[in-house]
Amino acid sequence: MYTVEFLPAGMQVQVEEGTTLLEAAQKIGLHINASCGGSGVCGKCRVAVEHGEIQGGMSEKFSPEELRSGIRQACTATVHGDVRVRVVVTSSLGRGGLTTTVPRRHRATARFFDIEELREAGIFKPPVEKFFLELPRPSPVDNMADAGRVVTGMNHQYNERHLMVTLPALRKLRRVLREDDFRVTVTVARPVSSGGRTFIVDVQPGNWVNRNFALAVDIGTTTVYGQLVDLHHGKVLAEAGDYNGQISYGEDVISRIIYSEKDDGLETMRRAVAKTINGIIDRILSQAAVKAEEITSITLAGNTVMTHLFLGLEPNNIRRSPYVPVSALFPPIRSTDLELHLPAHSVALVYPAISSWVGGDIVAGVMGSGMYRTEKLTLYIDIGTNAEIVIGSREWLVCTACSAGPAFEGGGISCGMRAAAGAITDCSIHPETWEPMNTTLERKPPIGICGSGLLNIIAVFFERGVIDQRGKYRRDSDCERIREGRSGYEFVLAWQEESGAEHDIVLTEVDIENFMRAKGAIFAGVKTLLQEVGLGVADLEQVVLAGAFGSFIDIDSAMTVGLLPEIDVDKVVYVGNGSLMGCRMSALSNHIRRDVVEVVRKMTSFELSEVPSFKDEYVAALFLPHTDLSLFPSSIAARNGFGQDLQHEG
Amino acid sequence: MYTVEFLPAGMQVQVEEGTTLLEAAQKIGLHINASCGGSGVCGKCRVAVEHGEIQGGMSEKFSPEELRSGIRQACTATVHGDVRVRVVVTSSLGRGGLTTTVPRRHRATARFFDIEELREAGIFKPPVEKFFLELPRPSPVDNMADAGRVVTGMNHQYNERHLMVTLPALRKLRRVLREDDFRVTVTVARPVSSGGRTFIVDVQPGNWVNRNFALAVDIGTTTVYGQLVDLHHGKVLAEAGDYNGQISYGEDVISRIIYSEKDDGLETMRRAVAKTINGIIDRILSQAAVKAEEITSITLAGNTVMTHLFLGLEPNNIRRSPYVPVSALFPPIRSTDLELHLPAHSVALVYPAISSWVGGDIVAGVMGSGMYRTEKLTLYIDIGTNAEIVIGSREWLVCTACSAGPAFEGGGISCGMRAAAGAITDCSIHPETWEPMNTTLERKPPIGICGSGLLNIIAVFFERGVIDQRGKYRRDSDCERIREGRSGYEFVLAWQEESGAEHDIVLTEVDIENFMRAKGAIFAGVKTLLQEVGLGVADLEQVVLAGAFGSFIDIDSAMTVGLLPEIDVDKVVYVGNGSLMGCRMSALSNHIRRDVVEVVRKMTSFELSEVPSFKDEYVAALFLPHTDLSLFPSSIAARNGFGQDLQHEG
Repeated sequence: MYTVEFLPAGMQVQVEEGTTLLEAAQKIGLHINASCGGSGVCGKCRVAVEHGEIQGGMSEKFSPEELRSGIRQACTATVHGDVRVRVVVTSSLGRGGLTTTVPRRHRATARFFDIEELREAGIFKPPVEKFFLELPRPSPVDNMADAGRVVTGMNHQYNERHLMVTLPALRKLRRVLREDDFRVTVTVARPVSSGGRTFIVDVQPGNWVNRNFALAVDIGTTTVYGQLVDLHHGKVLAEAGDYNGQISYGEDVISRIIYSEKDDGLETMRRAVAKTINGIIDRILSQAAVKAEEITSITLAGNTVMTHLFLGLEPNNIRRSPYVPVSALFPPIRSTDLELHLPAHSVALVYPAISSWVGGDIVAGVMGSGMYRTEKLTLYIDIGTNAEIVIGSREWLVCTACSAGPAFEGGGISCGMRAAAGAITDCSIHPETWEPMNTTLERKPPIGICGSGLLNIIAVFFERGVIDQRGKYRRDSDCERIREGRSGYEFVLAWQEESGAEHDIVLTEVDIENFMRAKGAIFAGVKTLLQEVGLGVADLEQVVLAGAFGSFIDIDSAMTVGLLPEIDVDKVVYVGNGSLMGCRMSALSNHIRRDVVEVVRKMTSFELSEVPSFKDEYVAALFLPHTDLSLFPSSIAARNGFGQDLQHEG
Repeated sequence: MYTVEFLPAGMQVQVEEGTTLLEAAQKIGLHINASCGGSGVCGKCRVAVEHGEIQGGMSEKFSPEELRSGIRQACTATVHGDVRVRVVVTSSLGRGGLTTTVPRRHRATARFFDIEELREAGIFKPPVEKFFLELPRPSPVDNMADAGRVVTGMNHQYNERHLMVTLPALRKLRRVLREDDFRVTVTVARPVSSGGRTFIVDVQPGNWVNRNFALAVDIGTTTVYGQLVDLHHGKVLAEAGDYNGQISYGEDVISRIIYSEKDDGLETMRRAVAKTINGIIDRILSQAAVKAEEITSITLAGNTVMTHLFLGLEPNNIRRSPYVPVSALFPPIRSTDLELHLPAHSVALVYPAISSWVGGDIVAGVMGSGMYRTEKLTLYIDIGTNAEIVIGSREWLVCTACSAGPAFEGGGISCGMRAAAGAITDCSIHPETWEPMNTTLERKPPIGICGSGLLNIIAVFFERGVIDQRGKYRRDSDCERIREGRSGYEFVLAWQEESGAEHDIVLTEVDIENFMRAKGAIFAGVKTLLQEVGLGVADLEQVVLAGAFGSFIDIDSAMTVGLLPEIDVDKVVYVGNGSLMGCRMSALSNHIRRDVVEVVRKMTSFELSEVPSFKDEYVAALFLPHTDLSLFPSSIAARNGFGQDLQHEG
C-alpha cells in the first residue's frame, strides 16, 4: 500500500500499487473534473506530480513543458510508490475547503449466507444425502431381502426411518451390494413433509459420500445462472450464466406469455430454457470435473412466468385480470421429466411462488437470506423492471410487486443503457461550476447512463441543487451544460468529443421524471405495505437488497432520492442474486424446503392496485425525496427547509 | 326341478332338467359302476327307466330288447321330468343297504370378500379416488392460483388435506378448469403412509366420479389373471386370464431364474410378462367398454420370483442359499414405468412379499381374506407345487413355504395330468367288488388323474381298505384291478378300452408314495409352524383355502388322508384365487394397502429346513392319515383301532 497525498486539500489516502490517481481521489471523495469517465480523452483531470513514482498519465493535449513539469492526467496515471500530487486549478475545486463534500459511496454490506450459517442453526441437512454402510453378509439365520438389509442398516447406523427404495435403485441393488462386499453408498432423498416417505434413490458400491453434488439455478427472464454445490463440504465449486434462450421470443415476461399462447409456443419456450439450463449444467460440470451421475438434486427458482414456462405450465392467465397462475406450489419432479441432462435418480425442486407477480425467485431470497427466521422487521426488496417487496419477520410476511418500469435497467432513459463498458455509473459535480466527474465502467469514454449511474447522478444533482425537489433543472443557472433540448431541459454530462458516442451524453428532465415514477412506485409500495400491517418506515430494522441492481446502488443516493427509506447504512444488507442464493441454501438444507411451504402459506400478497391508499402514496412519492420530509430527516431538503427548491423555481 | 328316485335303494334326489342320472346318483352318494368317467364308453352304468321322461342314454352295447325295456346308460341319460329308475345289478351295489356309504363331497364354503364387507368395516376408500368440485371463478379479490383453488376446494368440500398436484395434472389444469366453468373432477392418489402426501394426479372437466376404475392382476407362474374393478360401485366388471408369456422360457420359477441370469434374460422375461398383462388389460377393457385413460390404479401380486421378474429385479439369489430376494417391499410405481398400457397418471401397486418363498400372492390372500383382521386362529393355505402356509390372527402371523412337489398338479404321478377334459376328478369304489365309479372332467373317457382326483381316489381307497395306512395295496385282495405292474403294485381305475388313452389308467404305489410325501410335507409344515408358536392343530378355529387346487379338493378327503387337519367342515373357507382377491380388495381399500406394510413387518417367516423338529414331523406324517391318530379322531383308522391295516399286510 502506498500513500497518496493530494494538494492543496492536504488529503491523504492509502491505495494499492497500480491504482489510478483518479480512483485514489474518488476513494476519499475528492472531486477532480473528468467528463470522459476516466478514459483519458477529455484531459480535464490534470494533476502535477510533486513527489514519488507515477507511471502513465501522458496526453497529446499536454505541452512538452507541462509534461516535464510533472503534469499528468489523473485518470490514467498509476501509483507505484508514495506520491504527492497537486490538483491543477482547472480540474480541482476552486476552493480547496469544499473538496470533501463529494459523497462517499456506501454499498450495502454484502452478506452471503452459507453452510456455516446453516451449521450454526443446526439445519445443514441436504434434501438429498449420501450415507455409507458396511452391512453384514446374508446368512441362513439372517436372509432378509437386500433392500431390507439396507433399510435396516440405515435405521441402525443413521437412525433413518421409514425408508423406501425406488424401482431404479432396486433394479441395481443386488449387484451393487455384492460388488464391494456389502459396502455400499446409499443416496437418500428426503420428503418435504415431515410425515412423508424418505426414498433411497440410488446405491453405489463402496464409499462415495464425499461425492454428493447439487445444482442451484436462477431462471431469470434475461439471464440464467447456475451453481454447482458440493453437498459434502458445503462449497460452491463452479458457476456459470447465460442468456435465457427464450429471449429471441420476447424480451419481457408479457411477450413471452403471448408467444407461449401460439401453437407449440409453450413447448418451444419450455425447450428453449431447458436447453439454456442444460448448457449451463454441462459447463459447470466440466469446469469442476463432476459427472452428471453425481448430481443428486437441482433446485430452481424464477419469477412466476419463468417457472411456468420451464415446467410447461400455461401462463396465459398470468397476464389477464385477475392474474391467476396455474400453481404456486410445485411437487418434486424427476429431473429427467424436465428433460434436464441429469440422472434419473436426481430430483428437481422448484421454488414455490406467492402470486403471478411475486415469484419463486423472491421466495428463494426470503428463505435463503434467513429473513423468514429473523426477529427483525425486515424489508426485502429486489429492484428490476418489477420491484418485488417483502416485509416482515419470522412472525408474519407480506409482499407485493410494483411495476417500476425499465428505468433501473437503463430503459426509457434518453441516454440509458445496460451496465456495460462506457456506462456512467457514478458522477460528482463541482459545487460551483457543476463540472462533472464521471465514472464509467471499464474506464471507457461515456456512451450512456446505466441504472445505478442514473440513481447516483440524480442524487448528486439534487444534493448540489442542480435539480429541485420536483426533479427540474435550475432555470436560473448559467451553467452551459444545462440547456433546452428537443424534449425539454437537459444536462450535458459529457460532450460528444469526450464521449464514446456520436452525440452528447445528456440527462433530460423527462428521464428524471421516469426515474421518479419508478422510485416513487417502489417507495409507495413499501409504505403502503407497511401501512396495511399498521406500521411505518421508521419501524424497519433491516433492509435486504437483492438483484443485480441492488449490488450496485449507493445506499446514500437511494435514500437521498427517496428510493429506499432512511435507515442506518449498516442495517442494509446486500445478498446478490437472492434467487440463486435461495436455491443454493435449499440444496444444503431440507429444513428450508420444508419451511418454505409454511412461509408461502402465511405470506400475504397485496395487489397494490386493489389498495385505495396506494395511489395517494404514489403521488406523494413523486418528489425528491418525498413530499413528507419527516420520512427523510437527514435529507438535504429537510436540512434546508421544506419548499426551498420550489422557491428557486418560482 | 324334478325328482329322481333310485331303486332298489329307494333314494330320492331333486335335480334340474338335463342333469344326467349318473350326476343325480353322485349327488346323493349312490354308487353306480362307471369306469369310463361318464363318457358312455364302458356301458357299466346300466339303469332301467321305470317311469318318467328320459332322453339319451342309448348304447350300441345294449340289445334291442334291453333298449325296449328301458335300459339306459346313467351317464348319458338326462332327466326331463320326475323319473323312477332301477339300478341294474351289474352296475349297482350288490347290497342296497350300502348305497349311502359313498362319501358326499364337501367343498369348502366359497367366500368372496367384496365391497360390502369393506363398507361394513368402514374401510371402503380406494387408494385412487375421484371427486367432483364446483369451484368459484377467480376474481380480483380471490385470485388464488388454479392449483390452490382446487386444493382449497378439496379441503373445504371433502376435508382432504395436504394435497399436492403432480406435474402432468398441472400441465392441463388451466384448460380443464375453464372448459366446464370450474366444474372439475379431481383424481386423488393416496399415500401408503398416513403422514405422506396425497397427490392430485389428474383433472377432468365436468363430473366423472362414476368413471373410476382399477385393475387387479394375479401374476401366476403359469397363468396371469386380471380383473377390472369399478371403484365407484365396487363391482368386478370384467375378467380375463392368459398363460404367462414367460412359460416358453421355463415352466417353473427356478428355470425362469436361470433364464433371467443370461444376457438380456431378465429384460426378456420382464417384457414377456408385461406383454401378457397388457394383452389381458386390452381384453378386459374392451369387454367392459372402459378406456385405458379411466384406469387410475393397478394392483398386482405374484410369488416373489414373478414379482421380481415383472419389476425387472434380479432374482438370482432367490435360488441360492440363503435365498435372499432383492426386496420384499415395493414402492408405488408409475404404470408407464412398467411399460403397461395405462395412462401416465395411473399408479401400479405391487403386493409386498415375506421372503423368497412366501410371496405377494400369499400376502394378498392374507389381506384380502381379512385373515389379518380376524380374531380366530386361522390357517391360510395355498397348495400348489409349493404350499404356502400362514397361521395366525390379528395378533400375530407366522408363515412358511414347503415344497410339495408337483403331485397336486398331476405331476410325478404315472397317469397324472392337469385338470383338463378326461381327467379323473373323483371316484367311488364298490365296497365289495372295489369296482370304481370314475368322474371325469367334461365326461370324457378317462385319460389320467388330476390333483384333486388323486386326493379323492386315495381317500376312497383308504376308506374302503384298498390301501393301508402306509399307502400299500392289500396284497390279500382277489380284485383283478389290483396287480403288480412295472413299478410295483397298482390299481387299474379304467381299462384301456374304457379309457381315452392307449393304456390302462392306473394308480401305482409309487404314485401314492409321492402323494403322501406331498401331503406329509404340508401337514408337517402346518404342525411345525403351530409348534413354533406353542400351539397345536386342535387350536385352529378356521381354515382358509386358496388357489386353484383349493377350489376343487374335497374337505373330507383332505382330512381322511391327513392333508388338512381335522376341523368342522363349516370352518373351512375357500377364497379362490387369493392373490387376485387381495389385489381387488387393495384396489378398493387404501386401509389394506396401509395395513399390509405393518402385516409384512410383523409376519414371522420360518425356514422349515432350519427348524429341527420339522424332519420328525414330516416322517410322522408319511402315513394315512398320520402316525398320531389322536390328531384325526374321526379317521377310519382311529375308528378301527390303530395298526389294523398294518396287520392286514403282515
